[in-house]
Amino acid sequence: MQDSQEYKDKKAFFEKVITLYGRNVVIEVLQDSSVEVHKLHMADSNKQDGAIKEILSLASKRGVEVTYHAKNVLARISKNAKQDQGVAIDIIAKTYSNAKEIKELKSFKLIALDGIQNPQNLGMIIRSCAASDIDGIILPKKSSAKISPLVIKASAGTLFKIPIYFCDALEDILPSLENTKIYALSSHATSTIYDVKKSEKSIYVLGNESDGVSPEVQKLCNDSISIPMKRQVESLNVAVTASLIAFMA
Amino acid sequence: MQDSQEYKDKKAFFEKVITLYGRNVVIEVLQDSSVEVHKLHMADSNKQDGAIKEILSLASKRGVEVTYHAKNVLARISKNAKQDQGVAIDIIAKTYSNAKEIKELKSFKLIALDGIQNPQNLGMIIRSCAASDIDGIILPKKSSAKISPLVIKASAGTLFKIPIYFCDALEDILPSLENTKIYALSSHATSTIYDVKKSEKSIYVLGNESDGVSPEVQKLCNDSISIPMKRQVESLNVAVTASLIAFMA
Repeated sequence: MQDSQEYKDKKAFFEKVITLYGRNVVIEVLQDSSVEVHKLHMADSNKQDGAIKEILSLASKRGVEVTYHAKNVLARISKNAKQDQGVAIDIIAKTYSNAKEIKELKSFKLIALDGIQNPQNLGMIIRSCAASDIDGIILPKKSSAKISPLVIKASAGTLFKIPIYFCDALEDILPSLENTKIYALSSHATSTIYDVKKSEKSIYVLGNESDGVSPEVQKLCNDSISIPMKRQVESLNVAVTASLIAFMA
Repeated sequence: MQDSQEYKDKKAFFEKVITLYGRNVVIEVLQDSSVEVHKLHMADSNKQDGAIKEILSLASKRGVEVTYHAKNVLARISKNAKQDQGVAIDIIAKTYSNAKEIKELKSFKLIALDGIQNPQNLGMIIRSCAASDIDGIILPKKSSAKISPLVIKASAGTLFKIPIYFCDALEDILPSLENTKIYALSSHATSTIYDVKKSEKSIYVLGNESDGVSPEVQKLCNDSISIPMKRQVESLNVAVTASLIAFMA
């Protein structure tokens, strides 16, 4: 059916669209020519001050479509009335994919996040993974921090440099991957990152800042591994753990 | 002269005393039996609520000396009227030393910080170094973030697990160390951490979050080294860099 294909295309398109907000973020996005902009949203009530003028001038230079909305409508678009400052922007993240696409990869080394809540940690993880030979990050929509201005700030301009594979929950994707070694990071594990043997397809799962990997996801992993620590230190920051995995594993 | 020796002893003692503040921090410190407490300071004006009662009960159990002060006097002790919440505590950090003591060590691998400003970064660096086989951290008093409740929180209870060598400025200590390899971390360096050869005495210098290692300190280093990065990422978070050095160097 024609409609069905059209619907699928639309759905695939909108999965890659993310909406950011806040004046500084929007200026940064418009200045970054590597980011494809879909549409700029402005509140009718914005005063024509320096930042707003700069945003409109940048949008005009790039030929970006600008739409104006009542303030409450803009708040529905940004989903953050408190911090949108009357400005939101839809961008097309080419590096965003549905986690189902992982099945088509022949070999990969991925980081999967299970309940990372702190946006700074998420941003730092994206930055370190982008700088390493990690092939991508699996980010569940349900339990994790959302991509937000705080995440973007902590990622220091690296957000669109590395593939991010979205899923609703890790349980939806991990069981369907064949011949894949899945490791849960846990400070209690007796196996360590030094015991890991090379494999064509591997995923390292990092858990929540306080509670670690959830029992449900733990069940889907082949093994638990730790990073050996001295001086009876109990754990490392999760972004540090991700960085060590990214550069050492 | 007797006085002179007494003065030196006193000075050495007070170099190891640090004053922390804020109710939660004080409770944590009093609960940690590995931390030696010198004195507890309370504002006269504190209401006897749950937290204050808990603090006094913990202090009493440990036999800690409690002194009461007018609110403005307490503010001079905490040096942070806005955040002390009427409570400060002097602790004796056995792991604190003067950087001059490094000269007496036969072998070491140290991290030196040159202008780290963000308390969360400092706390994370302490945490990662404590968990690794880094022997200590050189922390200049002039250019770096101070040890504060934010640093302690980010260090996740590891602050007193690793030696911290204080100096006024790195220029005071680095030139006096003999047979020591000193490396400045720089994302522009052509040598990498993989080129570093084993040496008995080595120091890795990490620079300010925005500007990197200062030109003055750079001059005192034997070499600049980088961590190789993919996808044209320009730099890593400084706490991540410290962690990679701590676990990989």
